[in-house]
Amino acid sequence: MDISGLLTSAGINISICAVLFSLYSVLRKQPSNASVYFTRRFISEPVGPDDPFGLYRFVPSAGWLMRAWKATDEELLEAGGVDAVVFMRIVVFSLRIFIIATVVCISLVLPVNYYGRDMEHKSLRVEPYDVFTIGNVQEGSRMLWAHCFALYVISFSAFVLLYLEYKSITKMRLAHITGSHPNPSHFTILVRGIPWSQDHSYSKSVENFFSTYYPDTYVAHQMVYRPSTVHKLKKDAKKMYRMLRPVETEYVVRGDKPCYLCGGTAHTFKVIRNGVDDFTSQTTIDELHPTQIEKECPAAFVFFKNRYAAVVAAQVLQSSNPMLWVTQLAPEPHDVYWSNLSIPYKQVWVRKISSLLCALAFVFVFCFPVAFVQGLTRPDVLTQWFPKLKGLLKNQFVNRVVTGYLPSVVLISLMYTVPPIMMLLSKIEGNVSRSERKRSACIKVLNFTIWNVFFVNVFSGSFIEQVSVFSKLQELPFQLARQMPDQAAFFTTYVLSSGWASLACELIQLYNLVYNFIVKFIVRSTKEPTNIALTFPHHTEIPRMLLFGLLGFTFAILAPLILPFLLVYFFLAFLVYRNQLLHVYVTKYESAGLFWPVVHNTTIFSLVLTQVIAVAVFALKLAPVASGATIPLIVFTLLFNEYCRKRFSQVFRRSPAQVLIEMDRRDEQMGREEGFYNQLRSEYCQLAYITKDLTISEDFSRAGPNRQCEDDRSCQDEDENSLRQGIQHIKLQK
Amino acid sequence: MDISGLLTSAGINISICAVLFSLYSVLRKQPSNASVYFTRRFISEPVGPDDPFGLYRFVPSAGWLMRAWKATDEELLEAGGVDAVVFMRIVVFSLRIFIIATVVCISLVLPVNYYGRDMEHKSLRVEPYDVFTIGNVQEGSRMLWAHCFALYVISFSAFVLLYLEYKSITKMRLAHITGSHPNPSHFTILVRGIPWSQDHSYSKSVENFFSTYYPDTYVAHQMVYRPSTVHKLKKDAKKMYRMLRPVETEYVVRGDKPCYLCGGTAHTFKVIRNGVDDFTSQTTIDELHPTQIEKECPAAFVFFKNRYAAVVAAQVLQSSNPMLWVTQLAPEPHDVYWSNLSIPYKQVWVRKISSLLCALAFVFVFCFPVAFVQGLTRPDVLTQWFPKLKGLLKNQFVNRVVTGYLPSVVLISLMYTVPPIMMLLSKIEGNVSRSERKRSACIKVLNFTIWNVFFVNVFSGSFIEQVSVFSKLQELPFQLARQMPDQAAFFTTYVLSSGWASLACELIQLYNLVYNFIVKFIVRSTKEPTNIALTFPHHTEIPRMLLFGLLGFTFAILAPLILPFLLVYFFLAFLVYRNQLLHVYVTKYESAGLFWPVVHNTTIFSLVLTQVIAVAVFALKLAPVASGATIPLIVFTLLFNEYCRKRFSQVFRRSPAQVLIEMDRRDEQMGREEGFYNQLRSEYCQLAYITKDLTISEDFSRAGPNRQCEDDRSCQDEDENSLRQGIQHIKLQK
Repeated sequence: MDISGLLTSAGINISICAVLFSLYSVLRKQPSNASVYFTRRFISEPVGPDDPFGLYRFVPSAGWLMRAWKATDEELLEAGGVDAVVFMRIVVFSLRIFIIATVVCISLVLPVNYYGRDMEHKSLRVEPYDVFTIGNVQEGSRMLWAHCFALYVISFSAFVLLYLEYKSITKMRLAHITGSHPNPSHFTILVRGIPWSQDHSYSKSVENFFSTYYPDTYVAHQMVYRPSTVHKLKKDAKKMYRMLRPVETEYVVRGDKPCYLCGGTAHTFKVIRNGVDDFTSQTTIDELHPTQIEKECPAAFVFFKNRYAAVVAAQVLQSSNPMLWVTQLAPEPHDVYWSNLSIPYKQVWVRKISSLLCALAFVFVFCFPVAFVQGLTRPDVLTQWFPKLKGLLKNQFVNRVVTGYLPSVVLISLMYTVPPIMMLLSKIEGNVSRSERKRSACIKVLNFTIWNVFFVNVFSGSFIEQVSVFSKLQELPFQLARQMPDQAAFFTTYVLSSGWASLACELIQLYNLVYNFIVKFIVRSTKEPTNIALTFPHHTEIPRMLLFGLLGFTFAILAPLILPFLLVYFFLAFLVYRNQLLHVYVTKYESAGLFWPVVHNTTIFSLVLTQVIAVAVFALKLAPVASGATIPLIVFTLLFNEYCRKRFSQVFRRSPAQVLIEMDRRDEQMGREEGFYNQLRSEYCQLAYITKDLTISEDFSRAGPNRQCEDDRSCQDEDENSLRQGIQHIKLQK
Repeated sequence: MDISGLLTSAGINISICAVLFSLYSVLRKQPSNASVYFTRRFISEPVGPDDPFGLYRFVPSAGWLMRAWKATDEELLEAGGVDAVVFMRIVVFSLRIFIIATVVCISLVLPVNYYGRDMEHKSLRVEPYDVFTIGNVQEGSRMLWAHCFALYVISFSAFVLLYLEYKSITKMRLAHITGSHPNPSHFTILVRGIPWSQDHSYSKSVENFFSTYYPDTYVAHQMVYRPSTVHKLKKDAKKMYRMLRPVETEYVVRGDKPCYLCGGTAHTFKVIRNGVDDFTSQTTIDELHPTQIEKECPAAFVFFKNRYAAVVAAQVLQSSNPMLWVTQLAPEPHDVYWSNLSIPYKQVWVRKISSLLCALAFVFVFCFPVAFVQGLTRPDVLTQWFPKLKGLLKNQFVNRVVTGYLPSVVLISLMYTVPPIMMLLSKIEGNVSRSERKRSACIKVLNFTIWNVFFVNVFSGSFIEQVSVFSKLQELPFQLARQMPDQAAFFTTYVLSSGWASLACELIQLYNLVYNFIVKFIVRSTKEPTNIALTFPHHTEIPRMLLFGLLGFTFAILAPLILPFLLVYFFLAFLVYRNQLLHVYVTKYESAGLFWPVVHNTTIFSLVLTQVIAVAVFALKLAPVASGATIPLIVFTLLFNEYCRKRFSQVFRRSPAQVLIEMDRRDEQMGREEGFYNQLRSEYCQLAYITKDLTISEDFSRAGPNRQCEDDRSCQDEDENSLRQGIQHIKLQK
């Protein structure tokens, strides 16, 4: 590909982006699209279609860009929580490091590459892309020091920025923990692997265990029930409701009473007053439903008097059989992934291994379509596969589109199937919280992307060739060094098409837009669609960002021409994601920055890969001194990573006792709110979540509307209402 | 090598062993050698040379073998603690699994190998060794199913035995924890990374921190001082003692008073009564020695009221900066490696990495002498190196000795330099306990042995060749499959020479015997040498056992002729080590079975390697079905390992809360002994250990005489006495 081919691709993408951005600025002004583009605000106060009709609604504008630019981190934190800020830090970090890299590489490395060989330069427009890569530098050239210097500057800037980011995110995580409202998950642990006893129920076992070993701090517990039990209950309730629908509901006294299943307060159920609440005793449930005992899972939430007690119970090894009484801090109530709680703990390790193997198998199977896509970039291969295209490909424009643009589009379309599959695997894995599931999926997608987009495309051979490349490990850096400059053109167009266009798609929210349109103008439903509120898809967006980071680092000194395009991408990403996080995505649960260690490790991996490739490139270019000078940099990078791991990563795995004890003392001084432990228990009521309750529990929600709607878009108001009323009637009959 | 060569080697070794075993049985009867062969008993009650002279003392006997055979595990546990029993379990496990392997392989695999090819068999005596290996089986033979079946039998027997061993050792470890005497290390944690404060000393910081966050359970603490400070103190004391030697020591009132450094009771120092003991306050030391503050290290032992409190403080993350207030359960008092405690915690990770790199470098550098040794096994290479030997090598006997026996001897001699170097590296690493240092050295020696004895000898080429073999990972199993049958003869002689002879050497204790002889009969010292008491060298013996295990597994189906020799080795090892553990080695500290996970993992590694080699061998022998049938076995082995890891390994890393709480309750019911916390503190008194106190502290010693003598054999009674008295005088002058 020559420069004009690149410009064609850039031109196509710039026009697509311009059109889509303008379209977005118009669409967002239509009141009927409020549920698509202002989902966050829309959910708390649905806007009616009472806006006056005006011409301004159809004129593209750029005001939203300015507002996104001006928004502060505090606004973002309030809107999207720590995870949103962490995501934006990835973008900001990438922007910063690639501004430095662009300045250094365009001013220093690019001229060295361009004038690296004694040759007559043609007009810049028809100059082939290769002239701008390191491939153009003469072997044994003394100018390779420029590349080595640039690599040092980039690496050390990255160290400083990474360290500062890790530090500030650790601080943010601690600030989130110490946040003003008492978080129920700090007082709660999740116990799995409760041993089976013939004499009494799991519930009794839990009570015995914790009241024996934690007599001073144990408050209560909440069993987890088999999903089938809960679903059967739901079905019965629905049936009952239908039977009893004609009966007046006057008998029902409304009030905040113990929940049917757990004895805690369930905001969504109205039950008959039946005497005094007996909170700490578990007899209520056992007495009411003797058969229920069989339906318990060997898992429970246990509540403690203070945070420190909970953290101790979570971090200490409980039993001499490590497969029994396995404890961990409970996820936040809205973060709990109920259906996975019923998985016996003994199964979890087998599931983890199986899903890992499945993910690996999927990665390898996916190589075949990717190899096909790679064939598209080469006109000779293409005409070999489809001889009829020969004539068409002679047309210069068609040729450029087909070889420069089509492969990326096909690749991106294929890639859309990956996140759902990885999400499914992470579900099978048995993760007990949604954020953990998403994090696990994020890591899987990330590994998939690095392998299937980066490595497979670099080697661009058949599947067998790629595998054999990896089996000769000492050859790998040299293979990369040989192949990468040639693939620079492909990856530049990939940044243009996958990067820029994906941002425009993200902005438009095509799926929701069409869904909204169908509901409102074709089905003509009078109800507003309420199930389009999504949490931010970290598991697709973080791997995308990190892939572009990897491309930026590895190509920075090999083919610096990719950097300006990347920089534009990150700048647009900054504006677009800020806008989306502020207006579109809702925050249902928080991992409080758990994604950052993944980002940090991947960036270190990118840096080391870059440096290893540089060593190989310098060796191939017969510059042993430059090659040798890069090796200490690799060592330093690994040491830096080890230091960061020691210094920060523990805080992302365990809560520090000092902080929690101080919070407990502050709480004690201020006095705990009345009914706090009751609230705790109702927060972890399984039925409330299974029925996909839409009530916003204000007590603990720190940031934004905490909705308990499932990700699978299947909330059905009708169903819920029938269910609730059905349950009332069941209670009524007792 | 043919069978007669093998028999020559076996003959030499059997005679050497017989001579040395007889020699041992005579030497052990000499009263003057009691300190060498009955060190354990000798230390508690030195035997005088009052034994009557009799002929029986010079007649070899086998009674000791019978006594070793008849000793029970309980006796062993009492004599050598859990670690001794764990070591014997390795031997027993190896015996059991190789009895099964020998039966299966000799009855099934060996005939298949021998008759595997249509050929005329010569007399058994001159039959080459290769005829008994899998190399003799025809390609595409249907009889390879025998090998596959044997592999399955061996693997599944190993799983069952490994599981049972892991289970019983876990039980033993828990029994050790719950043992009757309160162990001071259960009440104590080691804190490192105490933050520096300008206002007050480290000691004050520790007191503030723990009395703030653990007000109910914190008892006291004991700072660690710089070794230079303690040594200066020792020097001053010595000087003072020499000056004051003529003065009568009547002024000194003997009594159990606070220690000079820590305020605790130091049994070895006699100081003047100076009022009431103020145990919990740290003012004593600060007031007495203002300059001492500068000499504190940022590390301390902190004592808690009960075990559970200590384990919580040890397992919970204390501070939001994970490099500060780093806690872990303290090692047992005699296990503390004082000189490493003064290493700042921030340095530890750098030291770990550096020592790992040094160990790696050492492993690679060691390849060169090993390659030289390999040259010795081939007469052609030998005559090429030393042309003058040509004539000598024509003599059949000399040839057999040089090619069959000498290489192993040279290799073993070289190997003797490895453990001290690895021990040094483990010291540099910054381990805070002797048992941890030994365990770390054990792992290093193990990796070294597997690489430098097994792999390097199998590939037996030049260094560069070996490295290139490892870089083509998918080729590795095939290379192993090709090379291993050829190297079977070498490894069989290795078992004979290294294995059998090393056991005889172990029995004779040559170093101590000579040292004892010199002290008694040449120097004519009247004192008994007291510094020859050694702890069991796990770091050399466990890798040796595991190497022979690896050889047994990998050669079992390839060259089953090695198995009978191995079996004899393990049987002799069973008797010899039992004898040595009962009579020779002293138990100064306990890791309570921490070596077992290393053994388990290595055995799993050996099994997987065996299976991978089998897959490659079957593939090379054109038996794809047998090859494919072995792959599920590999998967099953890995799953089994993962299960064991989940099921058992946690108990080896953290103490279970349930067990500790129950012990605390039992203690409470029985009432804690008077002065227990005072004792706790004196147990962790640094000066007492630095001066190499020989007093046996009876309070906590569970098994055998706990001596605090250093491993480096430099205890000097004279020195100590002068030091003690000097310190009294310093105190006197204050």
